[in-house]
Amino acid sequence: MPPGRLTPFSGSTLFAIGGAEDRTSRRVVLRDFVRRAGGKGARVAVVATASALGPEILDTYDEVFVGLGTAPVVRLRPETRDDAEDPALAGALDEVDAVFMTGGNQVKLAGVVVGTPFGAALKRAYARGVVVGGTSAGASVVSEHMVAFGSEGDTPRQGMTQLSAGLGLLPGVVVDQHFDQRSRYGRLLSLVARSPSLVGVGIDEDTAAVITGERLLEVVGRGCVFVVDPARAVTDAHLAEHGAPLLVSGAVVHTLPAGAHFDLVDRRLLSFEETHPAHQLLHQTEGDAR
Amino acid sequence: MPPGRLTPFSGSTLFAIGGAEDRTSRRVVLRDFVRRAGGKGARVAVVATASALGPEILDTYDEVFVGLGTAPVVRLRPETRDDAEDPALAGALDEVDAVFMTGGNQVKLAGVVVGTPFGAALKRAYARGVVVGGTSAGASVVSEHMVAFGSEGDTPRQGMTQLSAGLGLLPGVVVDQHFDQRSRYGRLLSLVARSPSLVGVGIDEDTAAVITGERLLEVVGRGCVFVVDPARAVTDAHLAEHGAPLLVSGAVVHTLPAGAHFDLVDRRLLSFEETHPAHQLLHQTEGDAR
Repeated sequence: MPPGRLTPFSGSTLFAIGGAEDRTSRRVVLRDFVRRAGGKGARVAVVATASALGPEILDTYDEVFVGLGTAPVVRLRPETRDDAEDPALAGALDEVDAVFMTGGNQVKLAGVVVGTPFGAALKRAYARGVVVGGTSAGASVVSEHMVAFGSEGDTPRQGMTQLSAGLGLLPGVVVDQHFDQRSRYGRLLSLVARSPSLVGVGIDEDTAAVITGERLLEVVGRGCVFVVDPARAVTDAHLAEHGAPLLVSGAVVHTLPAGAHFDLVDRRLLSFEETHPAHQLLHQTEGDAR
Repeated sequence: MPPGRLTPFSGSTLFAIGGAEDRTSRRVVLRDFVRRAGGKGARVAVVATASALGPEILDTYDEVFVGLGTAPVVRLRPETRDDAEDPALAGALDEVDAVFMTGGNQVKLAGVVVGTPFGAALKRAYARGVVVGGTSAGASVVSEHMVAFGSEGDTPRQGMTQLSAGLGLLPGVVVDQHFDQRSRYGRLLSLVARSPSLVGVGIDEDTAAVITGERLLEVVGRGCVFVVDPARAVTDAHLAEHGAPLLVSGAVVHTLPAGAHFDLVDRRLLSFEETHPAHQLLHQTEGDAR
């Protein structure tokens, strides 16, 4: 086995999309989601709690997923914690091959489902191997420590964003989205500076971070997945005043396009495959890449 | 001597401002520039070649600098390479304590002065200890490999920015500006991914990177100075197609607010002083901060 490779392993699959995924053209990201859900005839539950739109968002995803070969989607939209107590809604998650959470407001989504029977059913489904995915808000909510609101920009500032309690399907990782398009470098750095046990993952639009077994991260789609490892950074995030720019010195960053394989536990690139294979690069520098 | 400290040293001072420095209120950045130029009565040459404005930009800086205690400024505005051959213009730089280059278009500025007697006089002045500074375009031009044009965003893409030949006062460093305000994280990463011998320095607006002896970087002003060290990064920047998002894995980043002292040669934080001294942090982690 070449150095730096993971031993073969399996585990549940998380499929976190950075928002604005292509639903009408090549549909590269959603096509990969359906493939991982089992392909033709797969039973996909769509959870639309985060969305401010009406039932048409469920129609939209039904059309897209059926167009990619799935069975008609299972439409789920708990709107309150009372709804999320309904055994029938929770039970629906025991019957599917994949769960897809729409975009919208992740604070609403987490507020409705985390800690309810519906949330518990989601975690149970994930644990038994159901592909759990989502876009934008539906991506961020998989974190245990979930990014809530925030502002844009490349310089991290104290208090520019907050955390709240997410689903916890991916412990130790905070997932942000629309990363390139909304300039969220500063906001993600500010979060991990204050919580250096977390790895920050920022996902571009029309791009997915596909994470297997809480460890192997693959990239699918048009943009990049950004990973920041703050473990060895020096910071003043425990001292700085609200609004002050933060000292964050020595964080290690990774910008990963489609074809990259990354180890979230060891926090390093495993391999990179493109039309032009660049494996030799990795073999030269693997020991140093951390 | 505590570990990680520079031995006392001296050297020429570069004063690179990220644009939009406060000229009317507390003037923290320009005040520090004047102090380093010798304070009261200092002779400052203002080079306005980059600016698209008329002579009023020279009036503006004359007013600001005189308001901060300098002698009336020496107004210099070579507009062509022919102008920059004029021995009188070049000679004026032999008589001053500081040179300040305005913002505007650094490709024009570099195109007019680099490789001319005026450019040579600038380098000579810098070598003899004259403080050389500038804002925006006037900051970027100090690089040997100078950022030219480019686009915004947090994901590095092939060809999103270009290099051209700058003054070369700061070999091995590429200086970008308006860093936070124009989301230039991606553009700076794309440059150093392709030229991993360079360190990238991105300066926020109303903020200065003050670099002494080509080594010690101090931060002055309201925002941060961002430093990216690509030396150990894995990349596909030698292969990726134009417009493609780049793989850049394992770059080390530093976001440095006012009070930070950074070693550009060893590429690590030396100390950080704020209203709340955080030295103990550094002493704990100094060996790891790279």
